[in-house]
Amino acid sequence: MENFTFHNTTDIRFGKDRFDQELKDAVSQFGNRVLLTYGGGSIKKSGLYDRVMKALPGLQVTELAGIEPNPKIASVREGQKLVKENDIDVILAVGGGSVIDASKVIASAKFYEGDPWDLVLDSKKRFAIDQLPIVDILTLSATGTEMNTGSVISNPETTQKLGTGGPNTPAVSFLDPSLTYTVSKWQTAAGSIDIFSHLTEQYFDQKGYENDVRNGLIEGIMRAVIKWAPVALKDPENYDARANLMWASTMALNGLPRTGNVNSWTVHPIEHELSAYYDITHGVGLGILTPHWMDFVYSEATRPWFVSFGRNVWNITGDDDDLIAKEAIAKTREWLASLEVPTTLPGVDIETDENFAAMAASAVKVNKLDQKAFVTMTEKDVVSLLEASMK
Amino acid sequence: MENFTFHNTTDIRFGKDRFDQELKDAVSQFGNRVLLTYGGGSIKKSGLYDRVMKALPGLQVTELAGIEPNPKIASVREGQKLVKENDIDVILAVGGGSVIDASKVIASAKFYEGDPWDLVLDSKKRFAIDQLPIVDILTLSATGTEMNTGSVISNPETTQKLGTGGPNTPAVSFLDPSLTYTVSKWQTAAGSIDIFSHLTEQYFDQKGYENDVRNGLIEGIMRAVIKWAPVALKDPENYDARANLMWASTMALNGLPRTGNVNSWTVHPIEHELSAYYDITHGVGLGILTPHWMDFVYSEATRPWFVSFGRNVWNITGDDDDLIAKEAIAKTREWLASLEVPTTLPGVDIETDENFAAMAASAVKVNKLDQKAFVTMTEKDVVSLLEASMK
Repeated sequence: MENFTFHNTTDIRFGKDRFDQELKDAVSQFGNRVLLTYGGGSIKKSGLYDRVMKALPGLQVTELAGIEPNPKIASVREGQKLVKENDIDVILAVGGGSVIDASKVIASAKFYEGDPWDLVLDSKKRFAIDQLPIVDILTLSATGTEMNTGSVISNPETTQKLGTGGPNTPAVSFLDPSLTYTVSKWQTAAGSIDIFSHLTEQYFDQKGYENDVRNGLIEGIMRAVIKWAPVALKDPENYDARANLMWASTMALNGLPRTGNVNSWTVHPIEHELSAYYDITHGVGLGILTPHWMDFVYSEATRPWFVSFGRNVWNITGDDDDLIAKEAIAKTREWLASLEVPTTLPGVDIETDENFAAMAASAVKVNKLDQKAFVTMTEKDVVSLLEASMK
Repeated sequence: MENFTFHNTTDIRFGKDRFDQELKDAVSQFGNRVLLTYGGGSIKKSGLYDRVMKALPGLQVTELAGIEPNPKIASVREGQKLVKENDIDVILAVGGGSVIDASKVIASAKFYEGDPWDLVLDSKKRFAIDQLPIVDILTLSATGTEMNTGSVISNPETTQKLGTGGPNTPAVSFLDPSLTYTVSKWQTAAGSIDIFSHLTEQYFDQKGYENDVRNGLIEGIMRAVIKWAPVALKDPENYDARANLMWASTMALNGLPRTGNVNSWTVHPIEHELSAYYDITHGVGLGILTPHWMDFVYSEATRPWFVSFGRNVWNITGDDDDLIAKEAIAKTREWLASLEVPTTLPGVDIETDENFAAMAASAVKVNKLDQKAFVTMTEKDVVSLLEASMK
């Protein structure tokens, strides 16, 4: 087992209708000048905006609205201007991964004089400067950003979608599953696949295999997502389904599933190319790629991982390890197909392979897929994976 | 699922040979006046004491040695005197659960003018005062104290062994599995049973059943303990075995396994009476009681918990739920027996039932077992459980 450090100080407030009472204290412990960030206005339609504003009496609230899915550097630049102009003390992010991701970089950008895209290109710059505290109210179970330091920001000018890390996780995260009752089937499926993919990326690792505490944690969260995602699709106001998906989202990417491993991801970097080129829904892209990636990496050498995955996640029994492994991949494929989102690239309107070579080159280069990964991939391997995903 | 708050700020430094390099910074971030606490001198024999002292150049170290298993209030009183006299900034606890537990109460006692037993009797007093930061180097995988706020302190004068909570978890915990290579078979078995019992106490809960993220986490840690405890007994220097047990110990009682449940414990309070009356090894006592407790609580009403336990922890398959549940209990009994520690009360020299009524009365009273528990227990039920544990 590899050495590791785990130190995650986010204060998780999980449950129904807590923020109305607790939000003001949670925010004002950091000051009175608040930047409220949110997305496209659905929080106004749902009444959440009014509840939030009502919960913040006496605080000086500046707003940054319109943060889009796959958040763009333009929103971060706008946020940077606002936090500087208003000498903001704390950011209150209300939304899903995009809003919180953008807010984390804005939180750093208050203390940076240049263009915040520099901070995305080089995370080290963020560790050299301060970062505003973030309180968030999560409205989508997917990215896990509510309990980690990461963000993914897109730059349409350069066709780049890049991950960036900062020094701090959110200070306080309100996780109210009932706020996700109104999440569409499409987004519920995509979010669930995103969670599942975070788990596969960390589970299938060069080094983690002998850490059974971590393996068991991941396997347990996987079983929860596999069980409850279909329930949430069928019955959007099922509290237990929404609660399991939300807690799974947070636990899947808070540092615990990667304790004692090496943690080189493969499917996410490739999907980031799809989203950067075609602006498709991240989770849907992951779901398209994942079973083909499993086909690619499965071999005698990687069989032990797939056997554990089959036995402990899919409850497959028997003595033939090769059969167990292959059935586990088949069951993953079936489950993904059951979530009623496209399972091929043409299904998300990617009809030709014209950009495959460029995307493969970028994915391999940015994430060194040919040097470090559960199973390394060359550009040619990535092109083959994308071609396999066409049907 | 119940609402919950999870906020655990302990900085976990897991792995081999880290503290030699990292200890000084970890300690001195809180000041230069250090109280070093430890147990009966095994750290001197093993060379750990010398390594620790060598890692702390320039710091002013006061020592409190001789903290016993089932730590006594006398050690806390001695520690209180030392932290006050020397105006200590930070406590460095080197040892197992007893040393760290006592240190946590000493950390509060610096800021209390009266007898620290008051603080054990009424934890609320500890939340009203400050608490010194604690850095620890763990030498036994068992109690989970390295990442929680709890302590258990014994008072031989009053025959009481009581749990107490404080405001803070340890600031930094160094978890080096190789430090447990020299732990005896007896203590390795007892520690593993303690971990397993922490998990059963939280798993079998009135409310937690629908939280599959938490269930999966617990089931995964259970599988790790079941697998690796026998390996550590057979091969004490197996790093993976020691690492899994150490990380399991920490994860089993850091707040995560109780997220979304009600968390009323039963077996621990009864065992605390055994230890208070007979000073037996806590984990061994838990192992003796647990299967009988399972027999007692198992019914049609509690069957779903036992079926999940059977399927996901013991990999029992089939369609007959009653059979799965009973086999799960039988397998638990077998595993405990395989750990080469006594499985009956006479095995730990408790030969008569003379104190059963008094112990039962105390356990029920202190922990309200007749009012809140997975399955409530009267004094008579507790006496029956103790009687069943005689053979």
